[in-house]
Amino acid sequence: MKKILFTLILTPTLLFAQREEMIKKIYDHQLTKSPVYENLRYLCKEIGPRLSGSPQAAAAVEYTRQLMMDYGFDTVYLQPVMVPHWVRGKKEVTRVTNSDIYGSFELNSIALGNSIGTGPEGVHAEIIEVKSIEEVNELGKKVKDKIVFFNGEMDPTKINTFAAYGGAVLQRAYGASEAGKFGAKAVIIRSMTNRRDDIPHTGSLVYKPMMPKIPAVAISTNDADRLSRILQDQDGLKVFVQTQCEMKEDVLSYNVIGEIRGSESPEEYIVVGGHLDSWDVGEGAHDDGGGTMMSIEVGRTFKELGIQPKHTIRVVMFMNEENGLRGGKEYARVAQEKGEKHIAGLESDSGSFGPRGFSSLGSDEKRAKVQSWAPYFRPYMVWDFESIGSGADISPLAEQDVFLMEMEPNPQKYFNYHHTEADVFESVDKRELEMSAATLTSMVYLIDQEGL
Amino acid sequence: MKKILFTLILTPTLLFAQREEMIKKIYDHQLTKSPVYENLRYLCKEIGPRLSGSPQAAAAVEYTRQLMMDYGFDTVYLQPVMVPHWVRGKKEVTRVTNSDIYGSFELNSIALGNSIGTGPEGVHAEIIEVKSIEEVNELGKKVKDKIVFFNGEMDPTKINTFAAYGGAVLQRAYGASEAGKFGAKAVIIRSMTNRRDDIPHTGSLVYKPMMPKIPAVAISTNDADRLSRILQDQDGLKVFVQTQCEMKEDVLSYNVIGEIRGSESPEEYIVVGGHLDSWDVGEGAHDDGGGTMMSIEVGRTFKELGIQPKHTIRVVMFMNEENGLRGGKEYARVAQEKGEKHIAGLESDSGSFGPRGFSSLGSDEKRAKVQSWAPYFRPYMVWDFESIGSGADISPLAEQDVFLMEMEPNPQKYFNYHHTEADVFESVDKRELEMSAATLTSMVYLIDQEGL
Repeated sequence: MKKILFTLILTPTLLFAQREEMIKKIYDHQLTKSPVYENLRYLCKEIGPRLSGSPQAAAAVEYTRQLMMDYGFDTVYLQPVMVPHWVRGKKEVTRVTNSDIYGSFELNSIALGNSIGTGPEGVHAEIIEVKSIEEVNELGKKVKDKIVFFNGEMDPTKINTFAAYGGAVLQRAYGASEAGKFGAKAVIIRSMTNRRDDIPHTGSLVYKPMMPKIPAVAISTNDADRLSRILQDQDGLKVFVQTQCEMKEDVLSYNVIGEIRGSESPEEYIVVGGHLDSWDVGEGAHDDGGGTMMSIEVGRTFKELGIQPKHTIRVVMFMNEENGLRGGKEYARVAQEKGEKHIAGLESDSGSFGPRGFSSLGSDEKRAKVQSWAPYFRPYMVWDFESIGSGADISPLAEQDVFLMEMEPNPQKYFNYHHTEADVFESVDKRELEMSAATLTSMVYLIDQEGL
Repeated sequence: MKKILFTLILTPTLLFAQREEMIKKIYDHQLTKSPVYENLRYLCKEIGPRLSGSPQAAAAVEYTRQLMMDYGFDTVYLQPVMVPHWVRGKKEVTRVTNSDIYGSFELNSIALGNSIGTGPEGVHAEIIEVKSIEEVNELGKKVKDKIVFFNGEMDPTKINTFAAYGGAVLQRAYGASEAGKFGAKAVIIRSMTNRRDDIPHTGSLVYKPMMPKIPAVAISTNDADRLSRILQDQDGLKVFVQTQCEMKEDVLSYNVIGEIRGSESPEEYIVVGGHLDSWDVGEGAHDDGGGTMMSIEVGRTFKELGIQPKHTIRVVMFMNEENGLRGGKEYARVAQEKGEKHIAGLESDSGSFGPRGFSSLGSDEKRAKVQSWAPYFRPYMVWDFESIGSGADISPLAEQDVFLMEMEPNPQKYFNYHHTEADVFESVDKRELEMSAATLTSMVYLIDQEGL
């Protein structure tokens, strides 16, 4: 009995010490010898923004394929997927034309992704302000022939800014259809950010089936506040909107997949990734250049430190998260078709700020197991394993009952940059990116070693 | 018995709910109506850097005195303190003069605070590299007539960058004296940061009594790396250093103190503060403009939300943390002289990044009590109450057995800015500053309500 007791107590302790040591190696390696920051610089500065269907998206496919080859991944291949090809065209113009006080003046604006354009002639109409989709539905036909200005704010008292985003983003996603069905001519959306500044935020809209498609732009929060103030004092305020964006034919693109083959259960996969596409403004540094580069680090770090995974680690650069999710859907479709067994899917798509934890989506049992690993991460100031959630690209795997996780950084600053010209390489801190890469790698390591 | 049990169980729950509600009000208020960001802008942009003894330091005293008066603090007064008056003088020159490969070239340098100057004639001498003070002591007389280059790095694998700083900063503090005692002519210090960049970091040195005083400059980490590489291949490398800084006569300055009088124990104080002085480069935004402005928020928020404290809340703008700690010492001296009872001292001087928790210094019992409040803070992503430590300005109170705490932000980026021209208002995020102000206010509220 004594001996058995001894074993029972000692083994977990020894195992813990082993895991702990390897995790320290992973963090030490990232914080001293990681190429992740330089790789992100290349992606942002030498390739740049990479909207689905663009030449830069193709360059990013080739760049990450080569990276994973160079790092000695066991298999690297492209998974074809047809993606939307939306182009912005000439710079947008959004102009108030008849303010009693200010006369005619321009607003900082940007067309929403997937929007139709107004064409060169533009749209010129009276503007009407609402705070929500519900309000448009109450107004009904009163919005006919008008431009509807959705001015709902992100709730600043929500500590998790992603929750505030979730509470406001429906305007951006569906506002055009909801206003269009009552005969509105265009929509203007308040940018999705807590900040007051002059930077307009793009992002995708979705035209609902069988509803009229009308053009949509976002304006900066400062301009939204100003417009709202003017509207309080003046009836019949008119705005001119000119956008020359258009949706072209779908284009062949790819998810880029790299594998480190498992030694014990090579037919069981742990997938980890981010999305390679970005918006066409800024450089997609936080969204989601950092996520892709740190996912590649998972595989590279395993190779570099000689960690032989039991399961096959599959690093995926998903294509087209921003305006279609085609890559994520195709990945899940192929996995199902092939009957592949995924034991977990992990994503990093909430920015490259300092990591604070992981959200997860799956059985209580598996969530509890992941939460029991918190002590491994606490020395690295990663502490939050409670939230329920996953990432967009891996979300189609939920139907196959795959346990999903997303790495969660500190969220306060994400919407300073999201979908804007400000999302550039310089906004990412080297140490925070390295800490993120180490955290993601350590979690994949634990899942691989401990199972789920 | 039943009734007693009922009371015992219900009261803590009700109390918790009350506290929880007030803390939510504090965060909501900060995130929607706080002047803290605008106040920091004024301090940084309209006043600017405010080294002890400078006109700007005097302006900062008057500004914060007026702020606390305007906010209706019950008492606002100045506590006189004589402070050192060090001036940088003409821009420093640090130049390699005889590189075989590069010939003559300049290094990005900045004189250390409190350093004597070389005078216009400068110092021109052979350079010798060391990694630590121990190494200088081993070399002994071999450093005579040379310029000693302290190139010890901050350890990048330390997750808490303040620990890495602590491991390297002795070179900056005492390197000049330790090299000077063997007859060295000057010292050059590797800047205290994990980053590789071109920005030199100043900071104070301390001349040890009875040892020769020699001039000291810091150079950027990129230049330190380059200098080290050149030294590997070339003997007799010479450097010219010219600094025109000098220590002048002490100047009269002030701690600025504002009080909200306690209703139950007005003679018991909770002190909360940051330091008003900064270095003379940058704007002292993170160090410690944010800390001072959020300390004022503690008092203002109590007034604004109608929170009547039981104890007297004393907000202190400490003067001269950077190169003398005279304000912190004087505050403690006066407190002792008057026999004031302080139940806690809190400081914020680790930057205005997102708050992660509080370190503390005091009895295990009191530390445990503070740690038991963690559930109040978790909804705000503030989670770490384990570290032992306090802030510099309040540290002299330790002798009077005061329980001390420092608010701890996420530390990864602090040394990107610390003591440099990069520590400007734009490097502070509005939401992160507001979250910090709310967190500090909430902790003072809990200490006041629960006692220690």
